[in-house]
Amino acid sequence: MSDIKSFAVIGGDKRMIYCAKALEEDGFDVYTAGTGLESDKAPQEALQLADAVILPVPASRDNENIFAPLSKDKINAAELLSGCSKPVFYGNESLPVLKDTNSFCYGTRDDFKAANALPTAEGAIGAAVREYNGCITQAHILVVGFGRIGKVLSTMLSRIGAKVSVSARKSADIEMIKSLVMNAEYTNTLTGQYDIIFNTVPAMILDENAIACVKESGIIIDLASIPGGTDDKAAAGRGIRVFHELSLPGRTAPKAAGFIIKNTVLNVIEEEKL
Amino acid sequence: MSDIKSFAVIGGDKRMIYCAKALEEDGFDVYTAGTGLESDKAPQEALQLADAVILPVPASRDNENIFAPLSKDKINAAELLSGCSKPVFYGNESLPVLKDTNSFCYGTRDDFKAANALPTAEGAIGAAVREYNGCITQAHILVVGFGRIGKVLSTMLSRIGAKVSVSARKSADIEMIKSLVMNAEYTNTLTGQYDIIFNTVPAMILDENAIACVKESGIIIDLASIPGGTDDKAAAGRGIRVFHELSLPGRTAPKAAGFIIKNTVLNVIEEEKL
Amino acid sequence: MSDIKSFAVIGGDKRMIYCAKALEEDGFDVYTAGTGLESDKAPQEALQLADAVILPVPASRDNENIFAPLSKDKINAAELLSGCSKPVFYGNESLPVLKDTNSFCYGTRDDFKAANALPTAEGAIGAAVREYNGCITQAHILVVGFGRIGKVLSTMLSRIGAKVSVSARKSADIEMIKSLVMNAEYTNTLTGQYDIIFNTVPAMILDENAIACVKESGIIIDLASIPGGTDDKAAAGRGIRVFHELSLPGRTAPKAAGFIIKNTVLNVIEEEKL
Amino acid sequence: MSDIKSFAVIGGDKRMIYCAKALEEDGFDVYTAGTGLESDKAPQEALQLADAVILPVPASRDNENIFAPLSKDKINAAELLSGCSKPVFYGNESLPVLKDTNSFCYGTRDDFKAANALPTAEGAIGAAVREYNGCITQAHILVVGFGRIGKVLSTMLSRIGAKVSVSARKSADIEMIKSLVMNAEYTNTLTGQYDIIFNTVPAMILDENAIACVKESGIIIDLASIPGGTDDKAAAGRGIRVFHELSLPGRTAPKAAGFIIKNTVLNVIEEEKL
Repeated sequence: MSDIKSFAVIGGDKRMIYCAKALEEDGFDVYTAGTGLESDKAPQEALQLADAVILPVPASRDNENIFAPLSKDKINAAELLSGCSKPVFYGNESLPVLKDTNSFCYGTRDDFKAANALPTAEGAIGAAVREYNGCITQAHILVVGFGRIGKVLSTMLSRIGAKVSVSARKSADIEMIKSLVMNAEYTNTLTGQYDIIFNTVPAMILDENAIACVKESGIIIDLASIPGGTDDKAAAGRGIRVFHELSLPGRTAPKAAGFIIKNTVLNVIEEEKL
Repeated sequence: MSDIKSFAVIGGDKRMIYCAKALEEDGFDVYTAGTGLESDKAPQEALQLADAVILPVPASRDNENIFAPLSKDKINAAELLSGCSKPVFYGNESLPVLKDTNSFCYGTRDDFKAANALPTAEGAIGAAVREYNGCITQAHILVVGFGRIGKVLSTMLSRIGAKVSVSARKSADIEMIKSLVMNAEYTNTLTGQYDIIFNTVPAMILDENAIACVKESGIIIDLASIPGGTDDKAAAGRGIRVFHELSLPGRTAPKAAGFIIKNTVLNVIEEEKL
Repeated sequence: MSDIKSFAVIGGDKRMIYCAKALEEDGFDVYTAGTGLESDKAPQEALQLADAVILPVPASRDNENIFAPLSKDKINAAELLSGCSKPVFYGNESLPVLKDTNSFCYGTRDDFKAANALPTAEGAIGAAVREYNGCITQAHILVVGFGRIGKVLSTMLSRIGAKVSVSARKSADIEMIKSLVMNAEYTNTLTGQYDIIFNTVPAMILDENAIACVKESGIIIDLASIPGGTDDKAAAGRGIRVFHELSLPGRTAPKAAGFIIKNTVLNVIEEEKL
Repeated sequence: MSDIKSFAVIGGDKRMIYCAKALEEDGFDVYTAGTGLESDKAPQEALQLADAVILPVPASRDNENIFAPLSKDKINAAELLSGCSKPVFYGNESLPVLKDTNSFCYGTRDDFKAANALPTAEGAIGAAVREYNGCITQAHILVVGFGRIGKVLSTMLSRIGAKVSVSARKSADIEMIKSLVMNAEYTNTLTGQYDIIFNTVPAMILDENAIACVKESGIIIDLASIPGGTDDKAAAGRGIRVFHELSLPGRTAPKAAGFIIKNTVLNVIEEEKL
């Protein structure tokens, strides 16, 4: 069993509030700071009371202060954490001070990404229901990419009965897609005609050529982080509406996303025997 | 083959615009009025040019003018239609003048309702994705009612993997629900604990007792038309958020809904040999 | 609460053995006769010990003896039951003596039929996997009929990803089938080309005309009871293989079928306040 | 375009007959030998007529003769193929003479295995329907292993509504399984209680400890090739029935399996520019 019995949860959006709740439900003492909760403590106090620290994803947007959009005060990361010997869990490498601490990144782990694929896929489907004028179950849909999000999103769309194609680059993936009872296309030679294209690949995939595969009244839902994977000009030229759906799990399913942060941090603690 | 080769499509929301488009794609001449399209004609002119008339659903909100929210002008139904001998298709009985015309209601037909169950169910799921803080596939969900919408909505939720219960009143329905691989409850003796309840029954079903079956952070999505089927006060008392999702197919899937109006009108023409 | 605390379970195939077990698990005392179990009693003794009697489905094949294929001895129904004042539950009307007893038929009830639709559908799919040379998920499949079995079977096939059409006669059913995200055809004007046709309608549906809708290497799985709903000669003439899959729930899922008999009998007891 | 316009298809079970048919449907000339077809030629003649040779999977069972269970005559591989300069495609490395030929193994390729996962999963489900006494959709099912077959089989079972758990060893797989809306267990610490366990891992996984996770009336369907992954004695000791379902795609879906051999050979030809 770990010696860590309490956490300081500092900064972050709604996900961190749910993360804090989930930790309490698991029996930990939790001290929050910069989350916008009434029970927030001063960051320094939360840090002193707790056995370990959890920073949000992203840990920072300006490489200086901890990301804390729900708090009025800025929390300077270096001031707070320099000299801190307690374990610090963080979402991504954006704060120089983390190099000098006993810190662990949870945001790049495979289990974190795999777990987030589900709320991300649900949010993407919600966006499609909201924006597409017809029924998505009657639409011809292409999911670009057969990574984690592509797998979960295409499986979910296929389960509800939509006509789903998935694009990939390797023949083994192509056969796997077919064995999961979906249609398959090679990403670099798209030929179908689709009502809805979901892009899950962080690269410029939906170029002029690919956009020609969208039907006249179709839409593109691009899940790739900025700058996205769609040639927006080419799409606009054809009257195709493009929706860049970003930070989906945090935005449409903060409770699920907070639960996943909690889970992953506990996985790290177990693996690292902290 | 019918003698009807052209339609006047008068009033309505976006659905009627898509209905007009769908008729054109089927080869009919279409004259619109009061739809907000640039190509709109005067109502009287559209009526004269066409072999038959399609009014929206609802046909009227004030029992006097044709429902035309996208048009600046009012269209008095009695002035337009009295003396009209052409077939008039309408969504519901809200205009006295319809009694004196050769009119056919499409909005109360079983095929119309069955077809609308799909976009309605999709819209309801979209609302749940938007409002529920967790993943709906991991939620315990109750669908109240096993009519058309209840059947389609529960099947779709069940297909994506959610833990779905459906409530009904008859033992034969209960067994059918189980045979469709879902859980079943009797509507008047709900006992489960749910994250999300969808109500599809147009009656006060979600009373204080039923609301006790919603978990603390749960939500209710009420699809019953005004006044709805939820005791909103009792829900508020427990901090349960209630979403009255009304006119769903028209709002989230106007293209699908317009297509269904077109399809149903053509079914009527075939059956009535117009 | 009912006064019935014990049952005599008499005759039947494996289903009745599982029915007896399920009753015991619910806390009833059970006395079996003519089931082939070592613990079988003489029919008369079982009858005397119990508060009520359950006969199998069918209750009899010769209108004289209770259907007891697993027993060596014949059980004359009139000798056993005449003068019996205890409630008798039976699967179907095939024994004249039942008219003179306090008897209740469970086999024709809607809840019984609805519950049996699931094991029947599973058995039908198992037959298709066994007999079809390709993958059923890649096959074009037609389910004839949208009654209980048609609904459950088509939903299940559709869920695993097969390309499923369902045929029905009414336009409202046609629209409901489409809203459940399947293809629809009118039964009397079949036009598709199918690898597998499942017939669920107890009438001569798959005549020469319908059989022309089966592809060259296709198969027909006929679930209609004898004489079935397929023109076997016409099928043979085209080299189409026909499989009459009869008494499916009893044959491939006796445990599930026995459980359903138990459940339905208890439903009768509750409704009739026995 | 390849220069290969014709194939000699030599030996094999029904799959090779369907492979030959599929090649003909793609426009190739096909000469069969040792397949049991009336049109079979002598092996040497088929070899001479064709541009390339396809051997079955397995290519041989005795490391000497080509596997030809449907033929009366033995076909000595060394006699037939030594000195052959034409491309030879074969299912696995079991014939020494293959080393001296221009040969390509299709049976170990990822696309071949991925494509076979579908008919294998269907066959496994068919076996479960056949052997399990209840409804598989109401059963608690464990799929051991999250490789190709585990992925396809668990997805299919989950789609039809069964309560499916999948076991894996890595935390990232565990989270992926959950994101695909199934339950997850670590393979080496199984704790659930299951009606049906499918084993897809070619190692002794279902030892005494794992077998304790099978319910009293449950069954094990072991897809691992000989010697299988189940401690049969331990299972017998608990009265658990074990079914070793071997060479599934060939046995229950020879047409699909033959089609996959054809497809994979054509993939090899394209990649190798033969």
